[in-house]
Amino acid sequence: MLVNNMQTPYLQKLVIIGVGLIGGSFALALRNAGLVKQIVGLGRSQENMLRARELGIIDEIANTPVAALAGADFVMLSTPVGQIHRVMAQIEPYLEKQTIVSDVGSTKQNVIDAAYSQLANHLDRFIPAHPIAGTEFRGAEAADPTLFNNKNLIITPLKENNGQAINLVRALWQSCGAKVSIMSAAQHDQILAIVSHLPHMLAFTLMNHVQTCADFDPNYVLSYAGSSLRDCTRIVASSPEMWRDICLANRVQLLAELETYQKSLTELREQLANQNGEALLNLFKSASDLKLQWSSNRDGG
Amino acid sequence: MLVNNMQTPYLQKLVIIGVGLIGGSFALALRNAGLVKQIVGLGRSQENMLRARELGIIDEIANTPVAALAGADFVMLSTPVGQIHRVMAQIEPYLEKQTIVSDVGSTKQNVIDAAYSQLANHLDRFIPAHPIAGTEFRGAEAADPTLFNNKNLIITPLKENNGQAINLVRALWQSCGAKVSIMSAAQHDQILAIVSHLPHMLAFTLMNHVQTCADFDPNYVLSYAGSSLRDCTRIVASSPEMWRDICLANRVQLLAELETYQKSLTELREQLANQNGEALLNLFKSASDLKLQWSSNRDGG
Repeated sequence: MLVNNMQTPYLQKLVIIGVGLIGGSFALALRNAGLVKQIVGLGRSQENMLRARELGIIDEIANTPVAALAGADFVMLSTPVGQIHRVMAQIEPYLEKQTIVSDVGSTKQNVIDAAYSQLANHLDRFIPAHPIAGTEFRGAEAADPTLFNNKNLIITPLKENNGQAINLVRALWQSCGAKVSIMSAAQHDQILAIVSHLPHMLAFTLMNHVQTCADFDPNYVLSYAGSSLRDCTRIVASSPEMWRDICLANRVQLLAELETYQKSLTELREQLANQNGEALLNLFKSASDLKLQWSSNRDGG
Repeated sequence: MLVNNMQTPYLQKLVIIGVGLIGGSFALALRNAGLVKQIVGLGRSQENMLRARELGIIDEIANTPVAALAGADFVMLSTPVGQIHRVMAQIEPYLEKQTIVSDVGSTKQNVIDAAYSQLANHLDRFIPAHPIAGTEFRGAEAADPTLFNNKNLIITPLKENNGQAINLVRALWQSCGAKVSIMSAAQHDQILAIVSHLPHMLAFTLMNHVQTCADFDPNYVLSYAGSSLRDCTRIVASSPEMWRDICLANRVQLLAELETYQKSLTELREQLANQNGEALLNLFKSASDLKLQWSSNRDGG
């Protein structure tokens, strides 16, 4: 546990609920940094939990919330977003006063709503957070201690949050290599709808589009695909269940982004139908300029 | 020049018109394979041509079509698709009877239309082709002799084509490492609209979408983007001019694909607005299953 803001944190007992790509990577990163004594995992799939123990991600598999939570100083909720309400309800009766709880949900307002409803007595020590990192792979098998290196971690604090608890969450993620920033849940959810949730919806729809072509077998069409389709659809291999939960949780923001996007795509279609080469060139240049600027910002910083 | 179908081709004089990523890579691959004696380049940008010579892609810069074409046994048209009509008109008066001409255009019906109009006396030796390979980089600087390794090359022959000329084009591309197949121009243009042209339109529109958000500066939004947006927009750095030409050239097919895609995206929006988690899960699963099957087919073959 953090002794003061300036010192390196050390956890006696870290509990990971949902030992998948994100939870597993967080555990491995803290273990590699030497910041934790014991790591206990709790999860739905016994097979995945056994694999997590075999891989050295967790030391022990807990069979019940009560066993997991006894004496815990930090609990990480890293289940799919759709389960977080239920998981909070399950752990609430056994949460000890000192235990700090955080999450990694890709949407924040819905997680905060769940916390107000399920963790009402623990709001000082529930710190909502989201690491913007991931791959299209799933499960403990995919865990990687370097996953968060130089990636963004956003904390969306509650007004009830204890300052030292926020600092601990910040320090733990910084130890994982993350760049930590703080913003409101509303701002987080809007930005993530743009940079992540919308692109996923477009990519899922694009992959399904290949199957709508009545003239050819999808595998035949795909045999002629180059790197453009491959890269545009890399994220389609992500967990469908996770994405169902994310888009339902951030429904209002995502619907707004989808509507604006479709208007832009309709405009492009109209310019194309009108054979307006200059308008198309301007659309493509504007996109290309921003992309090149973004790439150079990233390479530089 | 090819002596017979079974022998390795050898070119005395190869002319590359437009020494960019594709034309330059073709030249380098043939040179590395030892299949060409002299390579002459012709192009709009003197700076790019000098760089191409410096990089050893071409031996000589021709200043006029007549100088380039004298004694040529093979001419590769690798300018942007929108210029191909004009380039054909420029070379037609100087084309010698034996010279075989081919192209690398991303759309084929429009190139064929241009050939019927501009190369009417040379249709036996104009072989339309398209290598499905590329990167988002441009110019001679980006040329790479391994670019076509294990990539698809599609020939869309004319009924007037000489069989030996087709075989030469096939043999040259096979020497570059490409997998050669033959199909109709209509089929090519439909498949490419699905696997390449549509994804580019979606990616350009997605990158522009970041700039439509009134609440935040685009650079601020992008600073929170992870690998999903980065990969979905990799192709946005491609040449805007080239993409204007491609989408105008394949306008009818592309408009049909855009319309179908928009319908699917609207369906997804409706399921999301209705909070129909099961329908969303089915959409995502269907996409994810096809993606995983595609990846395993590719890894296997």
